[in-house]
Amino acid sequence: MSAAHFADRLLEASAAKGGPVCVGLDPRWEDLPAAFRSGRGDDAAGRASAVGEFLVRVLDVVAPLVPAVKPNVAFFEALGAPGWSCFLDTIAAAKDRGLLVIADVKRGDMGNTAEAYATAHFDVAGADAVTLNPYLGRDSVEPFLRRCREAGRGVYLLVKTSNPGSADLQDLEVGNLRVYEEVAVLVRDWAAEKGMVGRSGWSSVGAVVGATHPSELAALRKMLPRVPFLIPGYGAQGGTAADVASAFDGEGAGGVVNSSRGILLAWRKGPGAERPGERAWERAVEEAVLEMRGALAAARSLEAG
Amino acid sequence: MSAAHFADRLLEASAAKGGPVCVGLDPRWEDLPAAFRSGRGDDAAGRASAVGEFLVRVLDVVAPLVPAVKPNVAFFEALGAPGWSCFLDTIAAAKDRGLLVIADVKRGDMGNTAEAYATAHFDVAGADAVTLNPYLGRDSVEPFLRRCREAGRGVYLLVKTSNPGSADLQDLEVGNLRVYEEVAVLVRDWAAEKGMVGRSGWSSVGAVVGATHPSELAALRKMLPRVPFLIPGYGAQGGTAADVASAFDGEGAGGVVNSSRGILLAWRKGPGAERPGERAWERAVEEAVLEMRGALAAARSLEAG
Repeated sequence: MSAAHFADRLLEASAAKGGPVCVGLDPRWEDLPAAFRSGRGDDAAGRASAVGEFLVRVLDVVAPLVPAVKPNVAFFEALGAPGWSCFLDTIAAAKDRGLLVIADVKRGDMGNTAEAYATAHFDVAGADAVTLNPYLGRDSVEPFLRRCREAGRGVYLLVKTSNPGSADLQDLEVGNLRVYEEVAVLVRDWAAEKGMVGRSGWSSVGAVVGATHPSELAALRKMLPRVPFLIPGYGAQGGTAADVASAFDGEGAGGVVNSSRGILLAWRKGPGAERPGERAWERAVEEAVLEMRGALAAARSLEAG
Repeated sequence: MSAAHFADRLLEASAAKGGPVCVGLDPRWEDLPAAFRSGRGDDAAGRASAVGEFLVRVLDVVAPLVPAVKPNVAFFEALGAPGWSCFLDTIAAAKDRGLLVIADVKRGDMGNTAEAYATAHFDVAGADAVTLNPYLGRDSVEPFLRRCREAGRGVYLLVKTSNPGSADLQDLEVGNLRVYEEVAVLVRDWAAEKGMVGRSGWSSVGAVVGATHPSELAALRKMLPRVPFLIPGYGAQGGTAADVASAFDGEGAGGVVNSSRGILLAWRKGPGAERPGERAWERAVEEAVLEMRGALAAARSLEAG
């Protein structure tokens, strides 16, 4: 299979959909609107079925508004075997709706195991891109890079994550650089390899950089001018549109900003939130996406101006 | 649920079974003895069914001989949704046969996602221990540590992995230490926390250290005297019994040494290997385990003597 370059596809989709919003799919059965939880068993199969139905309706709402979604596999794994089916079905449903899928799997393992993970998430699940953990180095990434070169896929290496524990290892000083900057050096080299750069000038090899670290984000953008960023930590974790503006250039290129709970749980806010009427939760999800898109656009034009 | 301490259970099982051999379960459908591949479809369901039947027979062979098995989830994920069922069924079958299960999942993600992964692999899958990637720091490990304290589970943090790419990030110098030694410092602290140390004096918090790095292994043992090691890289990757002897004390305590392909594919060696007769592959697996157990015991007694 040959396919268009991942970063080119993402840029086109972001432009077509009016902004770089990525909707994170971190579904917890306990957090679904009540209507999805009733009338089914609360065993693994019933829970996965409820989660799957909810996510398909979320996809229907967000597909016209955003370029990409990011299913987080952990929440599907927690639902047992039916959860894994739901993960695969959700990716297929997102692709059917024209969305790019960034599978948030944070895998990282040596040679032949990395090949199995690449088979699982690219060849079988059909994700457009995946997140990867860099701790095991080059051979843990190679089977994924091959599919970037040959099959139009993308990868996002964890560089500086949005969580408090990111300081424990990522911020240690290695000579003049911190550990996460050393990872950025690896990402820069891999991103520039033959076959990785698209017509747009952007690479298939991206970086995960948390919205909760705005100064590190700005510095990493200077260091990695044409590496797409996947920026988590917006909204529920505290990152704002102003915090992420430095990642984007004058044309709005630079990656995607992800919000998960801020969008999926938007219906819990406001009056009557505990028992939203039919479709009320969908309006809340739509409004949350539009609000985020507007905030990102405003912050980018301030930055550019 | 409360359960006996993980490291205590592992020590008792190693003593009862005559040595610290861990059998790695990295099943590739293409590598199964031909009898398992014929008579079934080669779609995901057929492949997962063949893999599952093979692994149950492997478990029957090795259960009397080894304390633990290490299913590597990547190879199950590559088989799609039936593969995840097979992963869960294999863990259950191993536990039914009295084996400890170290789920080789190398997960690592922030707070609420880490909780979902811990639910998936400890609460749902029922693994006794898991491997974890340290790149995201403390909050990515906490939900697993809680289950070590409260439910007799164990964790193995990746410290120095057995693969060539382990040099890329793990060997970078941070002041006087390398990155993997900084991770070892974190492991040392976590391993000494309240509730982590068993009656044996060994901790529920372990470390993954490759057999392919014997001098680093010896140094890490001095730095982490009562942290159980999970030592991959034996056999097919080049690690020998002499290479790992420094990890063990005079009583044979120190962790487990893993071999995957060296055991699962042992039947491919020797005359008639391409089409092993009924049960011939089982004898080959058994002999490979016994040979490894003997080599480890001999190397330990040389080390001690």
